[in-house]
Amino acid sequence: MFKKYNVIVVGAGHAGCEAAAAAANLGSSVLLITMNMGVIAQMSCNPAIGGVAKGQIVREIDAMGGYTGIIADKSTIQFRMLNLSKGPAMWSPRTQNDRMRFAEEWRLQLEALPTLDMWQDTVKEVIVKNGKACGVITSLGIEIEADAVVLTNGTFLNGVIHIGEKKFGGGRTGEKAATGLTEQLVSLGFESGRMKTGTPPRIDGRSLNYALMEEQWGDDNRGRFSYTDTPLPTEQRCCWITYTNDKVHEMLKTGFERSPMFTGRIKGLGPRYCPSIEDKINRFAERERHQIFVEPEGWTTNEIYVNGFSTSLPEDVQQKALQLIPGFENARMYRPGYAIEYDFFPPMQLDLTLETLIVKHLFFAGQINGTTGYEEAAAQGFIAGINAHQRINDDKELILKRSESYIGVLIDDLVTKGTDEPYRMFTSRAEHRLLLRQDNADIRLTPIAHKLGLIGDERLNKVNEKIKNSDHIIQYLKQNSTTVDKMNPILDEVGSSLISQKTKLVNLLGRPQINIYDLAKGDSDFGSYLNQFDKETIEQAEIKVKYESYFEKEMEIVNRMKKMEDREINPDFDYSSLVSLSIEARQKLAQVKPRTLGQASRISGVSPSDISVLMVHMS
Amino acid sequence: MFKKYNVIVVGAGHAGCEAAAAAANLGSSVLLITMNMGVIAQMSCNPAIGGVAKGQIVREIDAMGGYTGIIADKSTIQFRMLNLSKGPAMWSPRTQNDRMRFAEEWRLQLEALPTLDMWQDTVKEVIVKNGKACGVITSLGIEIEADAVVLTNGTFLNGVIHIGEKKFGGGRTGEKAATGLTEQLVSLGFESGRMKTGTPPRIDGRSLNYALMEEQWGDDNRGRFSYTDTPLPTEQRCCWITYTNDKVHEMLKTGFERSPMFTGRIKGLGPRYCPSIEDKINRFAERERHQIFVEPEGWTTNEIYVNGFSTSLPEDVQQKALQLIPGFENARMYRPGYAIEYDFFPPMQLDLTLETLIVKHLFFAGQINGTTGYEEAAAQGFIAGINAHQRINDDKELILKRSESYIGVLIDDLVTKGTDEPYRMFTSRAEHRLLLRQDNADIRLTPIAHKLGLIGDERLNKVNEKIKNSDHIIQYLKQNSTTVDKMNPILDEVGSSLISQKTKLVNLLGRPQINIYDLAKGDSDFGSYLNQFDKETIEQAEIKVKYESYFEKEMEIVNRMKKMEDREINPDFDYSSLVSLSIEARQKLAQVKPRTLGQASRISGVSPSDISVLMVHMS
Repeated sequence: MFKKYNVIVVGAGHAGCEAAAAAANLGSSVLLITMNMGVIAQMSCNPAIGGVAKGQIVREIDAMGGYTGIIADKSTIQFRMLNLSKGPAMWSPRTQNDRMRFAEEWRLQLEALPTLDMWQDTVKEVIVKNGKACGVITSLGIEIEADAVVLTNGTFLNGVIHIGEKKFGGGRTGEKAATGLTEQLVSLGFESGRMKTGTPPRIDGRSLNYALMEEQWGDDNRGRFSYTDTPLPTEQRCCWITYTNDKVHEMLKTGFERSPMFTGRIKGLGPRYCPSIEDKINRFAERERHQIFVEPEGWTTNEIYVNGFSTSLPEDVQQKALQLIPGFENARMYRPGYAIEYDFFPPMQLDLTLETLIVKHLFFAGQINGTTGYEEAAAQGFIAGINAHQRINDDKELILKRSESYIGVLIDDLVTKGTDEPYRMFTSRAEHRLLLRQDNADIRLTPIAHKLGLIGDERLNKVNEKIKNSDHIIQYLKQNSTTVDKMNPILDEVGSSLISQKTKLVNLLGRPQINIYDLAKGDSDFGSYLNQFDKETIEQAEIKVKYESYFEKEMEIVNRMKKMEDREINPDFDYSSLVSLSIEARQKLAQVKPRTLGQASRISGVSPSDISVLMVHMS
Repeated sequence: MFKKYNVIVVGAGHAGCEAAAAAANLGSSVLLITMNMGVIAQMSCNPAIGGVAKGQIVREIDAMGGYTGIIADKSTIQFRMLNLSKGPAMWSPRTQNDRMRFAEEWRLQLEALPTLDMWQDTVKEVIVKNGKACGVITSLGIEIEADAVVLTNGTFLNGVIHIGEKKFGGGRTGEKAATGLTEQLVSLGFESGRMKTGTPPRIDGRSLNYALMEEQWGDDNRGRFSYTDTPLPTEQRCCWITYTNDKVHEMLKTGFERSPMFTGRIKGLGPRYCPSIEDKINRFAERERHQIFVEPEGWTTNEIYVNGFSTSLPEDVQQKALQLIPGFENARMYRPGYAIEYDFFPPMQLDLTLETLIVKHLFFAGQINGTTGYEEAAAQGFIAGINAHQRINDDKELILKRSESYIGVLIDDLVTKGTDEPYRMFTSRAEHRLLLRQDNADIRLTPIAHKLGLIGDERLNKVNEKIKNSDHIIQYLKQNSTTVDKMNPILDEVGSSLISQKTKLVNLLGRPQINIYDLAKGDSDFGSYLNQFDKETIEQAEIKVKYESYFEKEMEIVNRMKKMEDREINPDFDYSSLVSLSIEARQKLAQVKPRTLGQASRISGVSPSDISVLMVHMS
């Protein structure tokens, strides 16, 4: 009853939505299959997008024509650029979002894509012929043909929800789990594992006393995720901060003997950097308090997300402990926190394109690969969607480098090193993070996406304009001097040492206390010159000037590594014949099938001397 | 971990939302428990409210302070007053609604009620002590105390979804069923039964060819459900009409041998007046075509509801048959139609307050009582919520009479006669329907709700103004004559016989061709007099003048019946001692426990002579 599709995407969460949209935008006919079309693009955990490293990922997706940034912008109730006091590589956009708006905007965005169809059903089986995925079979018994299949099953595969000593099947709270698919994939030779994640209770905001908490407002001069001109809401909502204390911790401990985590009922490993509150007390017993972010779930709803209080302790302990937090004395829960265990597939079974090594034309993206986070999921979905399209059209695959994107780091880490606990992105995972900034994601990636056909000329031109104009500004700064009279009042004001003679603007901008708008304020000629450029262009020029030397050093390192990173290896290379390799290296290389010498060098168990052997052999 | 509540409402569909809101507005502390707070107030079938008889029910709920009318108005994408060519008793408001807006507005409305709390969980058991409900036990094992419990479980109790030969557990498509509660209620002595209902496939609107269908627009001068000043959307969306044909029917028949209805896999009876398309072809084999209403699911979504095509045939047959309908040649489904079987509790086990006869302080409302339709569910929820509050405060119960409301007819029918198939309201079920009009629901019911405390003085005053002002208009019409010169051009225009002398306005308005605005147009004095009144007041005066004699006759009948309807019977009366009653009458009377002689007379198996015996005995 269905036509044959180019790409079938299974699951409509953050990964599935981006995967389906990307493949459709490249021209594939796409069928997005979801268990319930009423709950597409759910923010199943916190109502927020971005944050440290994750915000950069969203900017990268946006720079390449994905939608997570646009949807987040449309549904933003608060925007903050985190880490503004640090260097620009650490600046990270983050939004609080209206949960219902976010889901609705995604749904409408998907509906607007001409070659994207949707079907409500549950996929039980991937049809594989001659080692190649060529469709799916659903719970209704329908066989749907496709050239490629992308699985984004999130936490639904054999999902089990835990609250204290209770457990029940479910993919998210209140929703069914998906069964059958794991078993089929295992029968095809895939290895599966079990992971765990959790979520905090949701609170009726009317039961909180905000007077006892610290207010946290968004940025006055707010930014945005998207490089497009998506209209933004004009207002922002307040969030709050409060803290746990000894009494809260003692109360939580009374539930430890009924905790599914501590009693061993949960086997899967949870996200180390997103620990439950019971985990935090347990592991950091010396900490007197933990921060709690009190986040509204939308513009008008009373529902509140208690960020930092993820828990699977019994619900009565959750409630009693919450009520010992300042401002939460009368807190009433809408829904209890819970943990969920689900199947994942260790990602070393994937190629860097996110195609599986075992079954061709089958792609995995999102939590099914052992990651955590909407942004990590969306990025994988986006890349898998692109590569599914490219693969079936025999077009060049998209593999982003570690030196050009967080997305490249994410996928290279997963595929090359694997993960045995939910993988979350951090700036520290990116060795070239100085270059991977939120301010230049468009410069780094929009040209790549334009070449793929995901981004039109207009957006590419905009990026080229930004590059050209920021260079103009830098030229101006280098060529023009300012005077003692003009600048000393400003220098005095910001506490920077005064000048005694005409000085190049670029030299003043090098001082840490001075920003580009200080120069414009003091030197009205420069001020009027600057007026013709937009905020992002000016920021780009300023960042380049201030951090030029760091960037240059980093680029040197990248170039030095380039030889290794560009040195391609045939993925079907027979390592067993290379007896000079260590046995472990031979096994690991055969398993991972690295694409480059650089990737090979990052495989655990592959030593520098193994790499030398490879280099010698390849030359 | 929970305080004791006055009222716990289980389920947050149309019945549960109204029940919780009504009890909360009367001052009860209310806990609304739902399996998934993300899907409150779902329109699980058609995206529409009202229609013949159902529209009147919504007006009645609104007149008493319920919210269904307000929420429907806020989320309306098209409004039509049905049956305007018939008498005013048949006029029925109906809206198409934006499914997402409807659910969101209800959720926000519930959140705005100060004494209403919500909790996401599944109720497994009602706690009963000394024959009285005093709380619930949830799937998390939490015991929550309450003075009264209202069950509105809809289609979730042991719900099983059927599509062709496939079946799986579920309360709605993509959602879990609720298990355990039926079994507990049966163990308490309740009788349960099995019913069935169904829903059509949903279509991707982009795949339809609207040029081959008839457009159906909303009313130009649109009305509304609510008597309040709720702001309305300013635009409306188009719907379409198309028809099945022989080929469609033949195609559908090819699936009959795999139909769960015809092969006996579905045991429960479905709604006679909302039959599936296969049922229609089967039962009305002589009909060459059936009408299909093509209804958008919202303002911007592509999703289309295929009203008139409810089916549980195999999904491939659904698709093939759809594609034979004009305009559907390339129709693509988003979700297939399905049938759902669920547990209900035959409603003769209830009192007219919707309290169960077996367990005190336990109320049932909605599909659990064997009804179908959002409006029927909402009405029951509203009454159950009110009576739960009244009961636990020893305040006067609310039992609406058959002569004052459709809601009274609905509940009296259910409780007195029971139902073995999903009960749907029709105007023909209301013997006094001439009096139960959408135009006078406020006049009939707002004073009652005001007395209860659900409606404030302002709204009551507005109703009293309407009554007073419409009487003023009638007085004017009776006292003032118009002239030959003024009126004959108008009479000529509308095709009514000319007058030859001054004539009382009231006499002209009695003519079927003349409406009140024709009079205003011809007689400018009357025109300027009328200008001071609002549309509803003017309409009220017109209806009263035009149909006065019918209304008077109907009132006479009501008054004649009043003696019986007002003659109360002690519900605990021991019928077994009245040997002059027939044995069947004794059994049925003991089972139903009628509140009045009128109700007793409507019980099947109770004959006029049994009523005479009762009358003699009571006097």
